Amino acid sequence: MFRAGETYAFSPDISEAEARHVWSELPAAAFVALNSEDEVLGTYYIKPNQPALGAHVCNCGYVTAEQARGRGIASAMCEHSQEEARARGFRAMQYNLVVSSNEGAIRLWKKHGFAVICVLPGAFRHASLGYVDALVMFKQLQP
Amino acid sequence: MFRAGETYAFSPDISEAEARHVWSELPAAAFVALNSEDEVLGTYYIKPNQPALGAHVCNCGYVTAEQARGRGIASAMCEHSQEEARARGFRAMQYNLVVSSNEGAIRLWKKHGFAVICVLPGAFRHASLGYVDALVMFKQLQP
Repeated sequence: MFRAGETYAFSPDISEAEARHVWSELPAAAFVALNSEDEVLGTYYIKPNQPALGAHVCNCGYVTAEQARGRGIASAMCEHSQEEARARGFRAMQYNLVVSSNEGAIRLWKKHGFAVICVLPGAFRHASLGYVDALVMFKQLQP
Repeated sequence: MFRAGETYAFSPDISEAEARHVWSELPAAAFVALNSEDEVLGTYYIKPNQPALGAHVCNCGYVTAEQARGRGIASAMCEHSQEEARARGFRAMQYNLVVSSNEGAIRLWKKHGFAVICVLPGAFRHASLGYVDALVMFKQLQP
């Protein structure tokens, strides 16, 4: 997914060790979605989006396995991450860099209650499209 | 400055070693503003705001020494940081968490060409005001 350079800012040349580090070691927690054969269909991480005085807002990132697309895995992970976030006491969830060309993801996050609150002009250097806008999406989890 | 809990998300209990680390070691570079007696009047850091495919947008943070307020130090650092950013090839500069109660800073960044492009609801837990909004401010540096 990172190698495609279309949805995450991580270098397309990232090593597997570095990818594991940023995804599953740096964040507070990482989860996997498994089928009944224990195959990995997707994964997401959750972490505070800022240090201490901004740590009540979390950030998550999601990846669905190529062969598992279109089966609601991302939706299930999004719902799971919101429950997880509430259980951990987070008040809101923020996505910092949703690539504007990733229309499927934007539609999905909107369906799950996220609002586009910001357009970052040319903030993402897409592998094939060049500089494209990125969105900040936000959802309040507690009143 | 961090101890006040009014403008930066870093913990008010941050140690000096940790503060030095996040300010001057993690970023790409940190600068100090000195007077003719080599006293430190202010400091700022500059770093890419995202990994590889978002690394053409930089992020800076600025602190002016308490005893040097109102003398244009922050303005001078803001201008210097923009020159530095251009020299390093950054295409834009983004402030991710400008505390909405920090009216002096917001006015100053606007004067230097930054636009408020986003309001993050309740994203900052202010030491005395509680949860307050934070702003994302942005300036294009190259056409």
